[in-house]
Amino acid sequence: MPQDFDPERVPDVAAVRAAHERIRPHVHRTPVLTSRSLDVRVGARLFFKCENFQKVGAFKARGACNAVFSLSDAAAARGVVTHSSGNHGSALAWAARERGIPAYVVMPSNAPKIKQNAVRGYGGEVIFCEPNVAAREAACAQVQQRTGAELVHPFNDYRVVAGQGTATVELLEEVADLDAVIAPVGGGGLLSGTAIAGKSLRPSLKVWGAEPANADDAFRSFRSGRIEPLPATQTIADGLRTTLGTRTLPVIRSLVDDIQTASEAAIVEAMRFTWERMKIVVETSCSVPFATLLEGRFDVAGKRVGILLTGGNVDLDRLPWQN
Amino acid sequence: MPQDFDPERVPDVAAVRAAHERIRPHVHRTPVLTSRSLDVRVGARLFFKCENFQKVGAFKARGACNAVFSLSDAAAARGVVTHSSGNHGSALAWAARERGIPAYVVMPSNAPKIKQNAVRGYGGEVIFCEPNVAAREAACAQVQQRTGAELVHPFNDYRVVAGQGTATVELLEEVADLDAVIAPVGGGGLLSGTAIAGKSLRPSLKVWGAEPANADDAFRSFRSGRIEPLPATQTIADGLRTTLGTRTLPVIRSLVDDIQTASEAAIVEAMRFTWERMKIVVETSCSVPFATLLEGRFDVAGKRVGILLTGGNVDLDRLPWQN
Repeated sequence: MPQDFDPERVPDVAAVRAAHERIRPHVHRTPVLTSRSLDVRVGARLFFKCENFQKVGAFKARGACNAVFSLSDAAAARGVVTHSSGNHGSALAWAARERGIPAYVVMPSNAPKIKQNAVRGYGGEVIFCEPNVAAREAACAQVQQRTGAELVHPFNDYRVVAGQGTATVELLEEVADLDAVIAPVGGGGLLSGTAIAGKSLRPSLKVWGAEPANADDAFRSFRSGRIEPLPATQTIADGLRTTLGTRTLPVIRSLVDDIQTASEAAIVEAMRFTWERMKIVVETSCSVPFATLLEGRFDVAGKRVGILLTGGNVDLDRLPWQN
Repeated sequence: MPQDFDPERVPDVAAVRAAHERIRPHVHRTPVLTSRSLDVRVGARLFFKCENFQKVGAFKARGACNAVFSLSDAAAARGVVTHSSGNHGSALAWAARERGIPAYVVMPSNAPKIKQNAVRGYGGEVIFCEPNVAAREAACAQVQQRTGAELVHPFNDYRVVAGQGTATVELLEEVADLDAVIAPVGGGGLLSGTAIAGKSLRPSLKVWGAEPANADDAFRSFRSGRIEPLPATQTIADGLRTTLGTRTLPVIRSLVDDIQTASEAAIVEAMRFTWERMKIVVETSCSVPFATLLEGRFDVAGKRVGILLTGGNVDLDRLPWQN
């Protein structure tokens, strides 16, 4: 596989296809599931791309894997570094292990033990920092200086964006005649990749983003054209509590058709309904698209709609509908 | 489809294949999932037949559907009746609705509201009785007398047994070179169907049953040759708290290679591990086969082993690992 990816160049569908070839030996081709109960509930035909079944339990494996396997042998040998206390950290550690190179994951010193152990379980090295952006960036820079490791940002990296787009390539291979696809939006890596792949492979496809109302920065950024600050409120979909990046905002502004939001109550209801009826374990974050449909935010009546289920890493001791 | 099933004749693989043709338009062909984490844990290659994704959330849809669609038009018009406060009741109501005939489901007056509503949700009529065997049989007989409905026993019925065997037909179509298959055993309908299909389609296949140690009547019946009473203890896998039937015991004695048991702790651990790593919602009952492997009850080292995941109907408010 050629290591030819230019991280500065906005990926086109050819880059997404190249990413797909690159990561194919390592990731799962996840199934697309349907559910009559969920269809009836929103009056549409829904097709769920089950990235909760992906390696490391999340679509993040795709982007991380593409970034890691895009590196030249010389660069790869020095390892990769990122900051993430979520799925991207585990995904990068996993992808690095697949290539046999070191991974360094910076996370705040108060990050849950379970997240630390996940990274270490895949052979990654955890590096702690104070829980603020400046400390995080300083810690990353320090690792880069010390080791020469390549920074792989969770979403503001076009190698990652191209990798995330591969889920939509597979979804459209399986269900060619979709009318729309909805991705949750946090930093916008998945939504960007979805839009690049989706609009090119099926120009009539509507590409929509779904975000918690309590973290509606992307909703506002999509309209204003600049990176808007996060609201001070909390959301249960904590994986989406991040602003768009300088590389994802322009892609989203030019290719995405709309971004809408869902209330916290609808997110919990969507998650529980998915567990109950589809019999699958999904995270709060990936219940946001279905939650927007429960609240009627997109016109899907009679349409065929793809939904990206992004992950299944959940604390089974504390479920959101339990007190 | 010919309605040619003789409920008195032990089904052979041809009967299972006929059942498969009969139910195919109505049931899901469920996926077979694998998990490296679960494989590593027990040192075998496991193939999970995901009947938790089946219609009504359980394999019971297969047997009930076969029984209902085996009836002549005249018999079908009078409806079907059963006693069950579990998945078979829902499954029979669902299958009857598929054929457009009435279903009567006898359940104890203290059956959980959620079970009552499931039957009614599929259009079945719930008939209450006192919570004991005599009252249950009297109630069934009364319904039969009043309506002429056909009794479809949850497991002691060869139409049901043949229907349950269709899951193994599909499993072996997908993974031809299995060394063994494990089914949980309650009344023995699934295990009988699994053995009939499995031994005929692949004579070298080991067919094993897995049972809670706290409800080990089948374990003992398999050895003694007679229907042994249930122990007085409780098990979390309440779907398996029933003895073998007069029709299932002989099939199991002649075709099954072994039955082993699992502790309550292992069952809970198996269930949680499956949710965590496979990202699927499965019932306690169908975690029993994997639990027996956690406790080393079967020699599976390096083998390719099919496991029937029987259902996914779980009370999401109270999970077994939560207090």
